[in-house]
Amino acid sequence: MSLEIQDNEVDIVIAALQPNLTALFEAWRPFFSRFHIIVVKDPDLAEELQIPSGFDLKVYTKSDIGVLGATSIDFSGHSCRYFGYLVSRKKYVISIDHNCLPAKDNGGLTVDAVSQHMSNLKTPATPKFFNTLYDPFREGADFVRGYPFSWRDGVECMLSCGLWLHNADYDPMTHVVKRNQRNTAYVDAVMTVPYGVMMPMSGINVAFNREVLGPVMAPALRLRKEGKHRWDTLEDVWNGMCAKVVCDSLGYGVKTGLPYVIRSDAEAGEALESLKEWEGVKVMDAVHPFFKSLELSGNATTVEDCIKELTSIVRKELGPKNAIFAKAVDAMEEWTKLWKSHGIHSA
Amino acid sequence: MSLEIQDNEVDIVIAALQPNLTALFEAWRPFFSRFHIIVVKDPDLAEELQIPSGFDLKVYTKSDIGVLGATSIDFSGHSCRYFGYLVSRKKYVISIDHNCLPAKDNGGLTVDAVSQHMSNLKTPATPKFFNTLYDPFREGADFVRGYPFSWRDGVECMLSCGLWLHNADYDPMTHVVKRNQRNTAYVDAVMTVPYGVMMPMSGINVAFNREVLGPVMAPALRLRKEGKHRWDTLEDVWNGMCAKVVCDSLGYGVKTGLPYVIRSDAEAGEALESLKEWEGVKVMDAVHPFFKSLELSGNATTVEDCIKELTSIVRKELGPKNAIFAKAVDAMEEWTKLWKSHGIHSA
Repeated sequence: MSLEIQDNEVDIVIAALQPNLTALFEAWRPFFSRFHIIVVKDPDLAEELQIPSGFDLKVYTKSDIGVLGATSIDFSGHSCRYFGYLVSRKKYVISIDHNCLPAKDNGGLTVDAVSQHMSNLKTPATPKFFNTLYDPFREGADFVRGYPFSWRDGVECMLSCGLWLHNADYDPMTHVVKRNQRNTAYVDAVMTVPYGVMMPMSGINVAFNREVLGPVMAPALRLRKEGKHRWDTLEDVWNGMCAKVVCDSLGYGVKTGLPYVIRSDAEAGEALESLKEWEGVKVMDAVHPFFKSLELSGNATTVEDCIKELTSIVRKELGPKNAIFAKAVDAMEEWTKLWKSHGIHSA
Repeated sequence: MSLEIQDNEVDIVIAALQPNLTALFEAWRPFFSRFHIIVVKDPDLAEELQIPSGFDLKVYTKSDIGVLGATSIDFSGHSCRYFGYLVSRKKYVISIDHNCLPAKDNGGLTVDAVSQHMSNLKTPATPKFFNTLYDPFREGADFVRGYPFSWRDGVECMLSCGLWLHNADYDPMTHVVKRNQRNTAYVDAVMTVPYGVMMPMSGINVAFNREVLGPVMAPALRLRKEGKHRWDTLEDVWNGMCAKVVCDSLGYGVKTGLPYVIRSDAEAGEALESLKEWEGVKVMDAVHPFFKSLELSGNATTVEDCIKELTSIVRKELGPKNAIFAKAVDAMEEWTKLWKSHGIHSA
């Protein structure tokens, strides 16, 4: 990728759910060191953070979050990263979980996840029609025979969802059932998720255009007993579906695939503990059919207007099914206000 | 893949557009030799076919096609393979172009395209929701967190579209513009094309459930000046979109990705000659928006009924735009009759 990335157009956001970030920062040093890094410390975490020197970095803690005043949004656990999205002043944000290290590609080269995410965001997405040879803008690729010429310009990509080697992002059931399974398949592809198609976005390794999508990138859906493991959460999956609906409505693109990161081991025993109280199956059984049939009117021309429409539909259709959906809508509405007061402007 | 394939459930169909098939058959011998092979000779080809011995094989020629009597369907050129679909008596059909040889995977192993296509067809497809780790039924893979449990059973896969290394399946414009570009990216993935999403199917390397999809696998759309190169044709692209619409309506799946084959060089000079008279851009500019907005009523419960509904819509909406669409509808209707009289029954 010969794509040019300006240092001042990207922030890296790291959610600190555990104190020792030394291994994380040392492993990512070659790729992170030119960028500003926002570390948001889980407000539930008491210990001091350990971060090696040599980075342009700012740590935000419970007291910084407190500046927002009374808010219905819960920034604890994995949701603390969203505070970083709010205080960033850059056009793009990249967020990678604390237990993820750089992966190697099929040729043994270490993957620069920053560069790959930026390439995904800066080259067009093609959501109207599926290109069988995957990303047509990749070097050596193109649109195949039969791909409509009038759709080859594509649209702007707003969201880039990366993947994970070794420990895949499974729900607690799958972690328990397949406790020894590790993902070793490095699939060398990026693809646009077509219009109208929903996918479960993972917040583990993700990048987006903050200027445009910021108002919808909120920690809205929280399970009642949410722990500190990824499998405890669905906030990112919900967020991804909201973002996808908004992108579909406004004519923006969403990509998935490269870059991979390597995720450290899950502990199946802990997954079993989570599972005992996990309401995720029940919740998502309501969420999926809802999003499957959801289509915004197309009248909204801004992300904010799309959210207004979306929250009103969610409140009406999902609200009565489970109190956590009403809470999610509250959080989304609160977020758009926070975005106006504390977010918005890029550098 | 430890999948069991019965010799008597698959026919390999080869369209002979050039007489010497020696290299083709020798290269594929390890994978083709246990299956019955149907070779259909292009009715325009005068020379004797050269085929090595040691195969369970039947050659069909112009005179066999003549047995159908007067028909509006033109079986010349790449369309001759469809005669093979008609006379096959097997549940599944695999068709690979004469200029394609087995590819090697990223580990250097020669790819058994038959086995991969059968695996695609015999494991479920998941068209309701996108799984970010691709085919969840592949060894070592699964559904990711957030993928709805109630949709994890998937649906039956009816169509498997394979890909091509070296000489990719481009239109004549792209062949001319990128005359030296070769596809070297072996993307180790199979994915379901989601419901409602259209893709340009290539007939170069394809497999399908003949028992179910046969009535829609017709050579219907022919460009007025159709030559003997793939880039001269759109019959497979049209066929693929019809098949996709039918599968979407009946709740069946379509997959794309593995297996790859290696395709021999295109000659850019010849592509330039084709280009001078190529009406494909114009035609597809009408076709794509049509299929993009097309949705069958959902009342049809068989492939035949879907085709009735589809042909009536095509005749009304596309018919007035270009005479080749009216001809395509005629051919599709004729094909359903031929299928009843000459096709249908599996072994």
